[in-house]
Amino acid sequence: MKPILLNADMGESFGPWVMGLDHQVMPHVDLANIACGFHASDPDVMRRTVRMAAEHSVGIGAHPAYPDLIGFGRRSLACSPTEIENLVLYQIGALAAICRAEGIGIRYVKPHGALYNDMAHRPEIFSAVARAMQAYDPEIPLMTLATRDTSAIRELALEHDITLWFEAFADRAYDGDGRLVSRTELGAVHHDPDVIIEQARRIASGHPLTASDGTDLILTVDTLCVHGDNEESVASVRAIRQMLNRLHRPA
Amino acid sequence: MKPILLNADMGESFGPWVMGLDHQVMPHVDLANIACGFHASDPDVMRRTVRMAAEHSVGIGAHPAYPDLIGFGRRSLACSPTEIENLVLYQIGALAAICRAEGIGIRYVKPHGALYNDMAHRPEIFSAVARAMQAYDPEIPLMTLATRDTSAIRELALEHDITLWFEAFADRAYDGDGRLVSRTELGAVHHDPDVIIEQARRIASGHPLTASDGTDLILTVDTLCVHGDNEESVASVRAIRQMLNRLHRPA
Amino acid sequence: MKPILLNADMGESFGPWVMGLDHQVMPHVDLANIACGFHASDPDVMRRTVRMAAEHSVGIGAHPAYPDLIGFGRRSLACSPTEIENLVLYQIGALAAICRAEGIGIRYVKPHGALYNDMAHRPEIFSAVARAMQAYDPEIPLMTLATRDTSAIRELALEHDITLWFEAFADRAYDGDGRLVSRTELGAVHHDPDVIIEQARRIASGHPLTASDGTDLILTVDTLCVHGDNEESVASVRAIRQMLNRLHRPA
Amino acid sequence: MKPILLNADMGESFGPWVMGLDHQVMPHVDLANIACGFHASDPDVMRRTVRMAAEHSVGIGAHPAYPDLIGFGRRSLACSPTEIENLVLYQIGALAAICRAEGIGIRYVKPHGALYNDMAHRPEIFSAVARAMQAYDPEIPLMTLATRDTSAIRELALEHDITLWFEAFADRAYDGDGRLVSRTELGAVHHDPDVIIEQARRIASGHPLTASDGTDLILTVDTLCVHGDNEESVASVRAIRQMLNRLHRPA
Repeated sequence: MKPILLNADMGESFGPWVMGLDHQVMPHVDLANIACGFHASDPDVMRRTVRMAAEHSVGIGAHPAYPDLIGFGRRSLACSPTEIENLVLYQIGALAAICRAEGIGIRYVKPHGALYNDMAHRPEIFSAVARAMQAYDPEIPLMTLATRDTSAIRELALEHDITLWFEAFADRAYDGDGRLVSRTELGAVHHDPDVIIEQARRIASGHPLTASDGTDLILTVDTLCVHGDNEESVASVRAIRQMLNRLHRPA
Repeated sequence: MKPILLNADMGESFGPWVMGLDHQVMPHVDLANIACGFHASDPDVMRRTVRMAAEHSVGIGAHPAYPDLIGFGRRSLACSPTEIENLVLYQIGALAAICRAEGIGIRYVKPHGALYNDMAHRPEIFSAVARAMQAYDPEIPLMTLATRDTSAIRELALEHDITLWFEAFADRAYDGDGRLVSRTELGAVHHDPDVIIEQARRIASGHPLTASDGTDLILTVDTLCVHGDNEESVASVRAIRQMLNRLHRPA
Repeated sequence: MKPILLNADMGESFGPWVMGLDHQVMPHVDLANIACGFHASDPDVMRRTVRMAAEHSVGIGAHPAYPDLIGFGRRSLACSPTEIENLVLYQIGALAAICRAEGIGIRYVKPHGALYNDMAHRPEIFSAVARAMQAYDPEIPLMTLATRDTSAIRELALEHDITLWFEAFADRAYDGDGRLVSRTELGAVHHDPDVIIEQARRIASGHPLTASDGTDLILTVDTLCVHGDNEESVASVRAIRQMLNRLHRPA
Repeated sequence: MKPILLNADMGESFGPWVMGLDHQVMPHVDLANIACGFHASDPDVMRRTVRMAAEHSVGIGAHPAYPDLIGFGRRSLACSPTEIENLVLYQIGALAAICRAEGIGIRYVKPHGALYNDMAHRPEIFSAVARAMQAYDPEIPLMTLATRDTSAIRELALEHDITLWFEAFADRAYDGDGRLVSRTELGAVHHDPDVIIEQARRIASGHPLTASDGTDLILTVDTLCVHGDNEESVASVRAIRQMLNRLHRPA
């Protein structure tokens, strides 16, 4: 069984505003999704975050978004596919230059917020993101949401000759289709550390979750997304890391 | 004698706003300084401009600037050297990704507007730009203003192991130090096409200009900057190109 | 019969980029919809445009939009109603201060682009705009699209105690519901000056247009929107103004 | 003796990023300098901050700045006086509309960061700010730094018919001219609460401070600026408020 990787959104500070406990999270994750200046981050934050990732040998992913600082990239913007292709390219490149300055490369791309969601629901947006990645570097994978049935998105990825990395969330409830229950619904986000760690353990070991409709849900994933917004969530990240270390320890 | 190259600022449109007659200028220049979204341009304009440059085999230069769309990058912003290093890196990378999508690379960097001027007068800003270029690709040259005495800037470039390309202007008056007469002064900008073409001819053939203090001024340059803002200036670009073709024609 | 007023979008330049022939259009219109910096314009453009409107005794309308310069406010942004209320207030206020500096006031509000369209289709967005106007000044009217059946929007306006000004377009085709045919469809925009002037005459005199489904369409309107993007459209504006002058001339 | 007022920078959050403990500071101050979206804040943050100020009967000041979110308005931008006049007007107006929605008005203007400093050193920038205020409302005062000799700035204010409110800082060291010691120098910012409260007490009661050159410094001030960035500084704000209450208590 391939070890599951931990990924976290990083570099979400902006100018004088700090967000996230990156220093505390970085030592415990494998992959850092680094904001590229459109929904968060700026060239200085990007540089510091990339350097920190490099110091901890954490793989760097570009985390492109719609241009919307005030809305933190969480509000859909009605861009054309061509506009999306080009704004994704722009953001990947900006981060790539900063990575290059620190002697490393971009390992994958994970769209952020509304772009992440729109890509999952609208094939023309998925294709736009995929074209940007093909144009930049056909070898790097695209991180997307693991759901119950991923056949449609896998087919789209195949068309564009793009590798997918599927991710799941330890702290979010899933519906019967294996999609995230909307944050506006009660119980959408888990806060109990025990629940979070148990969900992570089930996902990492291939055991089923219980979806919001009561059905069993097995998600096939490459990586688990964790959050480090506050001390509590950082504690969960550490606990998940320890659980994964035990899980993957050779007998 | 090495042929002198023609460079022009390109891709200065922004969103719905058009600037410059890029389609008319591109066929006549060797180098296109392409705005990177901080003082002008956006991902779509950049993509179209890079594609057009590629079609005409025009070499692409990154044209980074202070973040100031309203002021078109012409107003100094009191950034720290580290901030400048990182914002230059960011812009180079953003353009580089778009170039990569069109199958070409960045050949040089030419800072824009106030950053171009500040770099020429303040060594710590020159060093910041040079560090960004070293970090991104130590091979690509930095385009800067040819003046009467370039020893100080050449020494700085040597320290940073950066190649310089010196440029001159056909349509601007020079002072005794070989610096551009400020646009706020009368006679700073030439409008008579004959004067412009004659100045271009003198620079290209190593003949002296007459500086504003009456002294002879010989500028040693790699490239000549031309403008394509309107029909008149495009006519000058064409005339300069023809003059250069005659000048460099094998006997 | 109340004379119909001419309105035009004005002050759509931004920083160094010029858009629209405001100087040529201003003398011929009654109302200027002035961009407030979110989709176009900046404080300097706003000041110059307001001054020009004041000189021609043209009534000033705030023209607020989603924050999207690159997309010129034509791309919907998924803002919450509260966000829309506050960004409309912000923009009205910014323009109002500049008007105050020129000794005049804001006479009405006309949302721009995607916000204009979204407001017409989504009651919660209409209410958000109406709340902003109520909060700022309950006396000023909201300009919106005249359609075949305006009962729903008039009811909404009544609820919010907001006056409506209905506008029509001389250069756009209408569908059977009296809505604008989408710009993506053939024939959506009239280019023949005779067609434009005849459509203006019919609207101004209460005669029916022929909708795209062949039905007669009578629009009850307060104002006619005209455009001054180029010499051709400015000629139409002048012709419409002359036609209206004849129409409203006392016998 | 006129009671000295406490002012604090408020509404410095931006989109998803929180800055300052506004809820804890607001009950203890008299005046809130509210950011207007150019260096911090957004329409929603402004609305919430204005509402909170209104609830505590705190007087609202516009806190306009250079357009520079990443630099938090602390980096000078080489704007022309006209540009400064218009961007100050724009920001005052935006905040004024939001105040109007909450049933209150703007009581004063205090430029922020680099604009605050530039205004104090460059008469043409002071004049630009003063013209904006004259144009908007000649009655509202301009808050500026109290120094040893304020004759020059008082003369300028008189020319523009603008009232000045002088402010001092309880937590900053002063040089012999009564200007703030630069933050880059050791000892520029006081951290010991006792030192801060004692400095506040001396300023409020007209007793001299000791300037960094050892001379006595008496500052004539209308208001004292306090900060509420963290729990420690909020404790100082509360302590200064109590000290002032005792000081101004009728015998």
